[in-house]
Amino acid sequence: MHPALLKSLEKTNSEYSAPYGFDVYSKSAKAKLREACGDPEADVFFLAGGTQTNSIAIASLLKPWQGVVSAESGHINVHEAGAVEYTGHKVISLPEHDGKLEPKELEDLLKAFHADDTREHMVEPGLVYISFPSELGTLYSAKELKDIYAICQKYGIKLFVDGARLAYGLAADGNDITLKYLAEHCDAFYIGGTKCGAICGEALVFPRKGAPERFFTRIKQHGALLAKGRLVALQFDALFTDGLYLQIGRHGNELAMRLQKAFSDAGIAIGKPSSTNQQFIILSKQQKAALEKHAFFEKWCPIDENHYLCRFVTSWSTTTSDIDKLENILKAL
Amino acid sequence: MHPALLKSLEKTNSEYSAPYGFDVYSKSAKAKLREACGDPEADVFFLAGGTQTNSIAIASLLKPWQGVVSAESGHINVHEAGAVEYTGHKVISLPEHDGKLEPKELEDLLKAFHADDTREHMVEPGLVYISFPSELGTLYSAKELKDIYAICQKYGIKLFVDGARLAYGLAADGNDITLKYLAEHCDAFYIGGTKCGAICGEALVFPRKGAPERFFTRIKQHGALLAKGRLVALQFDALFTDGLYLQIGRHGNELAMRLQKAFSDAGIAIGKPSSTNQQFIILSKQQKAALEKHAFFEKWCPIDENHYLCRFVTSWSTTTSDIDKLENILKAL
Amino acid sequence: MHPALLKSLEKTNSEYSAPYGFDVYSKSAKAKLREACGDPEADVFFLAGGTQTNSIAIASLLKPWQGVVSAESGHINVHEAGAVEYTGHKVISLPEHDGKLEPKELEDLLKAFHADDTREHMVEPGLVYISFPSELGTLYSAKELKDIYAICQKYGIKLFVDGARLAYGLAADGNDITLKYLAEHCDAFYIGGTKCGAICGEALVFPRKGAPERFFTRIKQHGALLAKGRLVALQFDALFTDGLYLQIGRHGNELAMRLQKAFSDAGIAIGKPSSTNQQFIILSKQQKAALEKHAFFEKWCPIDENHYLCRFVTSWSTTTSDIDKLENILKAL
Amino acid sequence: MHPALLKSLEKTNSEYSAPYGFDVYSKSAKAKLREACGDPEADVFFLAGGTQTNSIAIASLLKPWQGVVSAESGHINVHEAGAVEYTGHKVISLPEHDGKLEPKELEDLLKAFHADDTREHMVEPGLVYISFPSELGTLYSAKELKDIYAICQKYGIKLFVDGARLAYGLAADGNDITLKYLAEHCDAFYIGGTKCGAICGEALVFPRKGAPERFFTRIKQHGALLAKGRLVALQFDALFTDGLYLQIGRHGNELAMRLQKAFSDAGIAIGKPSSTNQQFIILSKQQKAALEKHAFFEKWCPIDENHYLCRFVTSWSTTTSDIDKLENILKAL
Repeated sequence: MHPALLKSLEKTNSEYSAPYGFDVYSKSAKAKLREACGDPEADVFFLAGGTQTNSIAIASLLKPWQGVVSAESGHINVHEAGAVEYTGHKVISLPEHDGKLEPKELEDLLKAFHADDTREHMVEPGLVYISFPSELGTLYSAKELKDIYAICQKYGIKLFVDGARLAYGLAADGNDITLKYLAEHCDAFYIGGTKCGAICGEALVFPRKGAPERFFTRIKQHGALLAKGRLVALQFDALFTDGLYLQIGRHGNELAMRLQKAFSDAGIAIGKPSSTNQQFIILSKQQKAALEKHAFFEKWCPIDENHYLCRFVTSWSTTTSDIDKLENILKAL
Repeated sequence: MHPALLKSLEKTNSEYSAPYGFDVYSKSAKAKLREACGDPEADVFFLAGGTQTNSIAIASLLKPWQGVVSAESGHINVHEAGAVEYTGHKVISLPEHDGKLEPKELEDLLKAFHADDTREHMVEPGLVYISFPSELGTLYSAKELKDIYAICQKYGIKLFVDGARLAYGLAADGNDITLKYLAEHCDAFYIGGTKCGAICGEALVFPRKGAPERFFTRIKQHGALLAKGRLVALQFDALFTDGLYLQIGRHGNELAMRLQKAFSDAGIAIGKPSSTNQQFIILSKQQKAALEKHAFFEKWCPIDENHYLCRFVTSWSTTTSDIDKLENILKAL
Repeated sequence: MHPALLKSLEKTNSEYSAPYGFDVYSKSAKAKLREACGDPEADVFFLAGGTQTNSIAIASLLKPWQGVVSAESGHINVHEAGAVEYTGHKVISLPEHDGKLEPKELEDLLKAFHADDTREHMVEPGLVYISFPSELGTLYSAKELKDIYAICQKYGIKLFVDGARLAYGLAADGNDITLKYLAEHCDAFYIGGTKCGAICGEALVFPRKGAPERFFTRIKQHGALLAKGRLVALQFDALFTDGLYLQIGRHGNELAMRLQKAFSDAGIAIGKPSSTNQQFIILSKQQKAALEKHAFFEKWCPIDENHYLCRFVTSWSTTTSDIDKLENILKAL
Repeated sequence: MHPALLKSLEKTNSEYSAPYGFDVYSKSAKAKLREACGDPEADVFFLAGGTQTNSIAIASLLKPWQGVVSAESGHINVHEAGAVEYTGHKVISLPEHDGKLEPKELEDLLKAFHADDTREHMVEPGLVYISFPSELGTLYSAKELKDIYAICQKYGIKLFVDGARLAYGLAADGNDITLKYLAEHCDAFYIGGTKCGAICGEALVFPRKGAPERFFTRIKQHGALLAKGRLVALQFDALFTDGLYLQIGRHGNELAMRLQKAFSDAGIAIGKPSSTNQQFIILSKQQKAALEKHAFFEKWCPIDENHYLCRFVTSWSTTTSDIDKLENILKAL
């Protein structure tokens, strides 16, 4: 939990707060988020975690017979234990291209569905799910996002953007998407807190008063309504004060670039180039074993008999001295 | 509805029958099916249709957090309107090879799942779904079925075989799987009625007393319990009297072979060679338009700008004169 | 299966019929039903059974966060194995009065819900379910139906009428509801086939073009789409030719009245007076045991240590000679 | 958030913690809870809120065709927006007696179910849900809990205890149930955090290694897995250090007793006598309006035209001076 957020929790702890998101911090945080999104009419809800937010948003944006389109590598398709299907909806997968959907393939899918004589026996695509940054730390360009949203609108379906790591995406070198642009080019998205400095919490935004009907009740129905909504709200209030959110993103990215360079300099291959805080590095079994003594990282997938793609993640709490240490360890390998 | 089945319905119509499958025809039909399967302990249930049978069987064979593995082209993955997902379970798709699963790819999937450090965040494969014949009219060999079942058993998961068109599979030239062999090499399968001479109805078989707990109640819970169970039971009683079921399969296949030859002779390409009652033919737009005036067939998918893969299906009711007519039409094209 | 329906099946069996309800018999039957309902714009769908029809209709009429109001004794609340809850919806129960909802209590429930400060934490009533005749063979009067529908409309919710035994209700002595009146005073209802002469099948009617969006797909999603839709359609076509449906109702009711009188004359208490084909009789254990040798009836519930409420049901196939026999048996008790 | 918990959060904030509950605080808190429950083999999981905990525990303890028995007034039956039904399970309600189930009525229900010839068409009761304290602040005695658990075991079903306000129940005057006794007399229960000093979080306990299969995955499937499990764990670690949990309970109860007395002394009727931190007071409209200017409390339900039952709740943060103020206000009414 970023110290500024903790401080905010301390400062307000002895006050009485109305429950279920009707407290003053929820009000204040929502105002700041609407401002940051450039959309005074945006509906904002605070939830506890990413899978929860995806699951509730998707189930509420879809009609009961529809499915959601996702890249094969999408978090909802791989690492959410079937939470979307548990609510009765199919994840319709498309090939991933460095973690991203290819607009042309999305349009082909939708065109084919509508041209199919048996479409009434099939799951109707009702929503597109993308993540920014993607599972592989890559970013959609402003043009790609615009194209995807145009396709969605052409076929009358919705677009939802998973922003679990949004701070790092917005702050990345070369990124040309702003929060305002994002809000203008989708029907719903969430601003990730848990992976961007908060101890828990995501802010789900429905631009242009777009919240699904009775959304409060649906949150409760999913068991996701926080009694003390202040907890998440005041963290977002702090994250969106004095540019802290983007600052956290920049910090994580800078150290990630140094981390990437440290591996490169040590002659270790970068598996997937990313400009955000996730770095995918190809380690031999030996290298992996040696590094595990010093650092926590994730075995992503096997590459061949002797190598793994491994994921290293930086955050607000990573320090330059952490990276210095890594450099020394790599030199000693 | 095959005349023999209709006759059976007429003959018994004035009798009183106990409801919900406790009638004498259900008893008799089950005995005949157990005999045909070579498994005196098989549990047998009669249901109304294929999607219903798939959906109930899969939901009942899976544990609540598990998913079912299917070829990408599997009926449950494409043409059942998300009925499996509606019950809360993911369909985990693998590439299709002429409509079939490749055993090696199945084993790789299961091995990778169990080796994955994040597997507890993923949908556990709990069941494999295959169809015999497949969606493309192709058949697994006895060896392939055995291999797939061995993989399932090695990883402690179940195998379910969709036999919507089982009669045509069992009766096909070159097929080396018998009903007995099938019952020995899976945990559940259904013997298709609707597409094999019945007006409605499938016989769901769980070999070796393998019915899921409280299966009767689960049928009711899915809204699939027939009050007058006699309707389906007596059709299966008739289908499994004097070898009628296989006879229907042979009849359909023979005419399908003649149909295939008719197209070949007319210089029209066969899209997917099948030895069963489904024939996939490549028609130009012009040919398709011309044939539609005389016959009912299905546009399967586009091949290129000017051609479609089309599906022609024979059945117990197709006659040699139907094929004669088709030959003449093709000659005149 | 009433002989007229069987005859219809025989006559049409050799014809080719389009699948999934696009056949000529579906078209013809729908026209006849629309005519009988006095609603040329009614949407009509044919399904296989009662629980299935209830489950699909209710799940499709409700929004995902809503529940359905039912009398505590309602079929959906007691004897459908939780099929409604399986689709994710609560059954909100109200006390039953001879199997019926009391309009005043319904209004109180709706009023209390809307006045409740915590209503967003509660299941919103979105639909009222009643059955005609009720589970106990009783009937709503035209005025009661009108009142209930007026309450539903006042609170912006829908009314669904389960007509599993509709023929007997419409044909009952003292009934003042016609099919046309029913269609005018609810949002959806079904005309029962299975318990009114058909071997299977119910006709689900949404008056005034009221079918839920993509209802065909939802039927498929529930595994309830009949490939050979002709089976149910032609039965309804026959049932609604020359007044057969009401004739079956009258026949069942007349014999039920004779059955009731037979018990009365034998000094056996009638548990719940009904003017339809279900008769609830109070039998001692001894009487029950004696009658079970001769007739099939259902133990409904225990009354006291030594007595049960038992349900006797007549139908199109019950004959006067069946009742004569019963009279003789009762005299001999 | 109780200051001791906040302090714990501050102290540990700069440490690296493994995610998803594999951190040292989760380990430590679990050890303390096992100790407090007198069950070294208890499985313990930390979740974010009460409805979430109920929903996941119930869905995982039930088999897919079963339902959960609850008092009509149970939280799951009234105030969780149908979260249980959303997972596909029926809540089977029994009358409430001051918020509690009557053991005899539970046994009658189970006996009747098993004696019913149509039970396979019904929802099988698979679990009993009670809350301690109940929705109305009342408590089961040790004998009542024992009796209920004995009935559950006799019928082979499970018992789950909702302990959202457990601290107040355990610390209440006259209560004879200890945490150890509770753990011995049910199959699962949760120790409430959110309403007992934590900012969020509940500790779900399955005594005797009783966690449902793959429970971690099921938490994820419900969208309820906290990435930073430390947040809830360290709060429970603090709550179960130096008897804080019971101390919070005692504090709340003592002030509740003073609050009760204050109303009594002012001649205002106590609606439901409770020895815990919830007090149900009957206020006239006028009294309600006057008090709302000074205090936050909840309109529970109308009593008559002019009176409401209102709920007042104390907590760790209520002070004696709060009650002093209330006394003065009441005197001035």
